[in-house]
Amino acid sequence: MPLSRADVLAAHERIADKVLRTPVMRCEALSDLVGADLFFKCEHLQHTGAFKYRGASNAVAQLPKSCTAVATHSSGNHGAALAAAAQSAGIACHIVVPEGAVQSKIENMQQFGGQLHFCEPTQAAREAGLQQVLSDTGAEAIPPYDDDRIIAGQGTAALELMQQKAELDVVLAPVGGGGLVAGSCLAASGTKTKIVGAEPEGANDTALSVQQGRRIDPIKPDTIADGLRAHVGQRNFAIIQQQVAAVVTVSEAEIISAMRLLWQHLKQVVEPSSATVLAAALKSPILEGQRVGLILSGGNVDLACLPWQRGTHG
Amino acid sequence: MPLSRADVLAAHERIADKVLRTPVMRCEALSDLVGADLFFKCEHLQHTGAFKYRGASNAVAQLPKSCTAVATHSSGNHGAALAAAAQSAGIACHIVVPEGAVQSKIENMQQFGGQLHFCEPTQAAREAGLQQVLSDTGAEAIPPYDDDRIIAGQGTAALELMQQKAELDVVLAPVGGGGLVAGSCLAASGTKTKIVGAEPEGANDTALSVQQGRRIDPIKPDTIADGLRAHVGQRNFAIIQQQVAAVVTVSEAEIISAMRLLWQHLKQVVEPSSATVLAAALKSPILEGQRVGLILSGGNVDLACLPWQRGTHG
Repeated sequence: MPLSRADVLAAHERIADKVLRTPVMRCEALSDLVGADLFFKCEHLQHTGAFKYRGASNAVAQLPKSCTAVATHSSGNHGAALAAAAQSAGIACHIVVPEGAVQSKIENMQQFGGQLHFCEPTQAAREAGLQQVLSDTGAEAIPPYDDDRIIAGQGTAALELMQQKAELDVVLAPVGGGGLVAGSCLAASGTKTKIVGAEPEGANDTALSVQQGRRIDPIKPDTIADGLRAHVGQRNFAIIQQQVAAVVTVSEAEIISAMRLLWQHLKQVVEPSSATVLAAALKSPILEGQRVGLILSGGNVDLACLPWQRGTHG
Repeated sequence: MPLSRADVLAAHERIADKVLRTPVMRCEALSDLVGADLFFKCEHLQHTGAFKYRGASNAVAQLPKSCTAVATHSSGNHGAALAAAAQSAGIACHIVVPEGAVQSKIENMQQFGGQLHFCEPTQAAREAGLQQVLSDTGAEAIPPYDDDRIIAGQGTAALELMQQKAELDVVLAPVGGGGLVAGSCLAASGTKTKIVGAEPEGANDTALSVQQGRRIDPIKPDTIADGLRAHVGQRNFAIIQQQVAAVVTVSEAEIISAMRLLWQHLKQVVEPSSATVLAAALKSPILEGQRVGLILSGGNVDLACLPWQRGTHG
């Protein structure tokens, strides 16, 4: 059975007492800039600072009672989300972490009780490391996005936004591995709301795949939006290809400028990945006069050096 | 008649459809750090980015119908708040601005239709400039804090917080000119909630005045908390002296560290003045186990250079 809107509704019910019903913010200055009514869904205020907690909670909630541990490989938000969801369910969480991962993200994973296993920073080493952990511990693997439980759980962010603010014409969601945007497509299916993905030009495998009508091979990502560097998943792309209205790509300069606007006017600390949706709105004159939802995906950012300062301060 | 809680209640009713009922945020990580239940009142999300809009709205709402213009002197948030309140009432707003005021704050005042009159950056020039504008335009003067309408209006922030979160043991509010903390004292009078002021060591005229039992002469302020450099007002001090539970002073390093914690964990862009309340909570072991409200007073900050970077980047 292919995933459907019903799976997102079921996920939403399943995780209702585990995840935060994050607020939706408005901002006159940003709405004026875009010429549309903007509604920001604040997933950077979700537990662990990102929407990833929704998918992880939905996956953990469906484990058999006999399961005592989960495992994944991650360099960041998915690992922290899974660790927190596992901790709250009273089970262990093993995370294979590539050496060189950002220190603050390592600390975030440890803060929620994640047991870290370091490996070489290659895809092959991450997968081999995970296999080793799975066979050593008997843990259940929870992939970061190419997984029905994760897609349905992540789709609850858009579902909730559409419940909180009726009659949105469009919802903009960032595209990395594609869990959030595929889940959003499911959440919106059968409604009048269109889903538009926002993807960095430097990690535009989904936009290219949509153009070419097939999931292209991984590209070498080069973008400040560290949450969006993943290769779009197989299950994810199948949904996106059928249901997404468009995937808009945005440049690094557009991402940085939109991030600064969000900090200045919305007063919210969001990470670069979150800023892609405002960047996409700002270059989409077709949105004029529409009611537009934007999913702010996360707020885990290194405060020591902000991106608009890199030019000045090295 | 001295100001009382009834004036704050009346102000709240008067401005209910003009100001935002700002949200109250919680944060487990920060509550754990302090060892208390913390409730953050988000006045940085208020119109014009600061609680000042409450007082300005309350003052403008009580003007005689014949009044067509207001005037003040300001280098920042009060000017923007008064300009916005005047604009929304359809009257003009003249602001005498000292040369050298922060560019972003000048733009904020202009954005809301404020008519700016520049003067030398001295207290005498500001007052002379204001007298000139008043006699040229017939505008009504609206002082920034030493004014009953302003105190009662600013007190609505604490009133609302106590309505939103019942049975707070303490509410912490920043102290500059004393409008917010005096208004908070009025809002809390007759309740079990104690009001504690948070003041920078480098602008500690209120703490010294409370100690000495009299309003001391102005001191030369030296603090990053640019919203708290004012000399405590006469009306304000009379209320504070009688009703405040304590005024806690905090160092520059404590302010900067607390500001960074608020950005990192609460994901909120707040200005240094707002961070004084968390800094005060962090050094007050007496709060342990209590329910503590903290008023985040504003979010208008220069994003080009963050305070924790000044040491590194000059």
